[in-house]
Amino acid sequence: MSKKIIKPSILPGFMELVPKEQILFNQMRDTIKNNYEKFGFLPIDTPIIEKSEVLLAKSAGETEKQVYRFEKGSTDMSLRFDLTVPLARYVAQHYSELEFPFKRYHIGKVYRGERNQKGRFREFYQCDIDIIGNGKIAVINDAEIPAVIYSTFKDLGFDSFTIKINNRRLLGGFFSSLDIEDATMVLRVIDKIEKIGIEKTKEELRLLEIKDEDVEKIIEFIKIKGSNDEIIEKLKQLNVENDKFKEGLEELETVVNYIKLFGVPEENFEVDLTIARGLDYYTGTVYETFLNDHKEIGSVCSGGRYDDLASFYTKQKLPGVGISIGLTRLFYLLREANIIEPKEYSLTKILIIPMKGYMDEGVKISNSLREMGINTQVYVEKGKMGKKFNYADKLDIPFTLVIGEEEVKEELYSLRDMKTGNQEKLTASEIADRVK
Amino acid sequence: MSKKIIKPSILPGFMELVPKEQILFNQMRDTIKNNYEKFGFLPIDTPIIEKSEVLLAKSAGETEKQVYRFEKGSTDMSLRFDLTVPLARYVAQHYSELEFPFKRYHIGKVYRGERNQKGRFREFYQCDIDIIGNGKIAVINDAEIPAVIYSTFKDLGFDSFTIKINNRRLLGGFFSSLDIEDATMVLRVIDKIEKIGIEKTKEELRLLEIKDEDVEKIIEFIKIKGSNDEIIEKLKQLNVENDKFKEGLEELETVVNYIKLFGVPEENFEVDLTIARGLDYYTGTVYETFLNDHKEIGSVCSGGRYDDLASFYTKQKLPGVGISIGLTRLFYLLREANIIEPKEYSLTKILIIPMKGYMDEGVKISNSLREMGINTQVYVEKGKMGKKFNYADKLDIPFTLVIGEEEVKEELYSLRDMKTGNQEKLTASEIADRVK
Repeated sequence: MSKKIIKPSILPGFMELVPKEQILFNQMRDTIKNNYEKFGFLPIDTPIIEKSEVLLAKSAGETEKQVYRFEKGSTDMSLRFDLTVPLARYVAQHYSELEFPFKRYHIGKVYRGERNQKGRFREFYQCDIDIIGNGKIAVINDAEIPAVIYSTFKDLGFDSFTIKINNRRLLGGFFSSLDIEDATMVLRVIDKIEKIGIEKTKEELRLLEIKDEDVEKIIEFIKIKGSNDEIIEKLKQLNVENDKFKEGLEELETVVNYIKLFGVPEENFEVDLTIARGLDYYTGTVYETFLNDHKEIGSVCSGGRYDDLASFYTKQKLPGVGISIGLTRLFYLLREANIIEPKEYSLTKILIIPMKGYMDEGVKISNSLREMGINTQVYVEKGKMGKKFNYADKLDIPFTLVIGEEEVKEELYSLRDMKTGNQEKLTASEIADRVK
Repeated sequence: MSKKIIKPSILPGFMELVPKEQILFNQMRDTIKNNYEKFGFLPIDTPIIEKSEVLLAKSAGETEKQVYRFEKGSTDMSLRFDLTVPLARYVAQHYSELEFPFKRYHIGKVYRGERNQKGRFREFYQCDIDIIGNGKIAVINDAEIPAVIYSTFKDLGFDSFTIKINNRRLLGGFFSSLDIEDATMVLRVIDKIEKIGIEKTKEELRLLEIKDEDVEKIIEFIKIKGSNDEIIEKLKQLNVENDKFKEGLEELETVVNYIKLFGVPEENFEVDLTIARGLDYYTGTVYETFLNDHKEIGSVCSGGRYDDLASFYTKQKLPGVGISIGLTRLFYLLREANIIEPKEYSLTKILIIPMKGYMDEGVKISNSLREMGINTQVYVEKGKMGKKFNYADKLDIPFTLVIGEEEVKEELYSLRDMKTGNQEKLTASEIADRVK
């Protein structure tokens, strides 16, 4: 009757946590959710499996290779690889049931068959917000997004972080003024400037057959520094005669002003003309967010403005603006660098330890405590007292309550603070107050 | 430049909700989560994709056919089809990092390629709790589970529901006393008694080559009725000379007594000897839960006690007890029958509508309200007032706040209750109090 044992393991590239870590992860997820809701974003949830034909309407190349795609019966299906394509499909599909501007948040798992590498995940949580307009959408929305980022990262416990903003129209207009019409390749090069440095950037720009003189102009342009207002002022003084540039600059100025009005301190956001976001998807404001003491982990929250969300699914023009937090990667990096640590492990506040013969009383008191809103567990297994206290310790349960003859007679229970070792004799409702 | 439009749609058997419904769904999910936490269960989250070899170690037949299984590269992988197999794998894999009794909850999506049928889902949420022991686990745990069910369904807004409990050891012992050694087939027949009726049950039992006399005894046995204590008493009076039966009866008695101590009213739980739970997995207490006014939707929460959770993955003996709520199906059925309805649609409490030229003030007040904990949205698009009020109406946002010259001068803002139409002039902090 001996059974073959299969080694319990999961696939590489998948994150799985012990409860202590899971609680910390969930706390971060809830903080993000609460902040999204604070600004009026509404929840949606879409299937993880979609029709390949629909999900892969747009994508090509690298993304497509990474997609988990398979057939069941005669149906060709794929796992979603981001939350943007499902959003586009969702808005197009439910168009007539939605109110615009449509502000939605979506927190869910996505799948990418990434190369197996430390810190790269094949299943990871994205936490997205987007504001979608029907036909058009005001530029002030672009300023609300950094306000959400600011509020969220503050609540996550960070102080020193910078939301970098830029405007794709401004960049495009500037390149246009140098007769560079296809800015995409240039943007991709600029996007890497933090990584590769100025000299290598110049080299790569020259490879794009840009004149030395223009390469210098580009570098000079993207290196414009100063306070946000100073940068705007310097951009104005460039007197670039290009409508796209002017529009972009006007947008950027409005966005900067409204970000301030939304209460984001100047030290937490800055115009950075090197932020380009390589994707051809973005058309206006773009964002990246960096933890100042941990720039090595890269942008922790990025996004931008786009002109047309769902052109593959509908003729309705649906412009929008949004950002995404890659929570699984963020959590992993923060834990690796010991920037965050499980603090309040225990969701359970009291462990009741009934003495022999007092299980009934223990259970009854647990009922009362729960009714008073205290997460309470009764230790119902047999065993030595030491083992039971140890259990509370291991699970970081902050209080224990031993129930025995004396306690039941007096209706006073000894609440033990597991950290200090202090004990107090209290009534059930005093205990609830104490623990809250 | 005309682009091919792909019809936006999802696969059949997948549930997708508009935000109004999603909020209701999420409220139910949160209620379940909060109740699980109230009793000391800890969260885990496992990958949706696992190695086929691991995930399908046990299953065979029907389940295996329904599994979404595919290869990527040379890896054979499958989507999880329940949360029990991942739990078994998880506990075996993380055995040394866990404290026992290990109380975990898991709320997540699972996948089954069910036949396409109304009300059948291929992607659905399960909400599971289990208490896992290391080697052994006290029978009182079996009584805590109904306490969690009771507390959860009360909080979900139900009053009239019955948690039916039975004991597999008792059933098995009884059949043994009739010299029926393989009880599995008998249990499957009994499991259907509610559906097929007594006569058909008798017929099917006879097909199993059970003597007419014993068929009558079985029917008489499972039809024992009365209060919980009366049923226990009648079972005792049967004087069945079988150790398994005696053990099972003792367990059942303990469980019934402790369910009362856990505060579950007698009207909300009953011993029902026809509840068998066909799976060979269960070995002791079993549960099913019915909404008394909607028995047609079947059991809304089921589970039981098992001897060995993870024998495919470890030699450690890991007995446990648990239940599962199939939330997607439950939500669907409750909505179909109009038993639940979106009540408090809006997570957003105030929509600020700035008059022309007062956007800055509108944004500033929104900051203050958010700081006071009020979910607030500013309507930043251009448009007529009527359209803006209409937006609040459509989204069920309960209050609007119009900001214009007068309001800014007086620092008093007109809060309009969208339901009653009443308006009040209040300061920002009065507004926060009012809305809370």
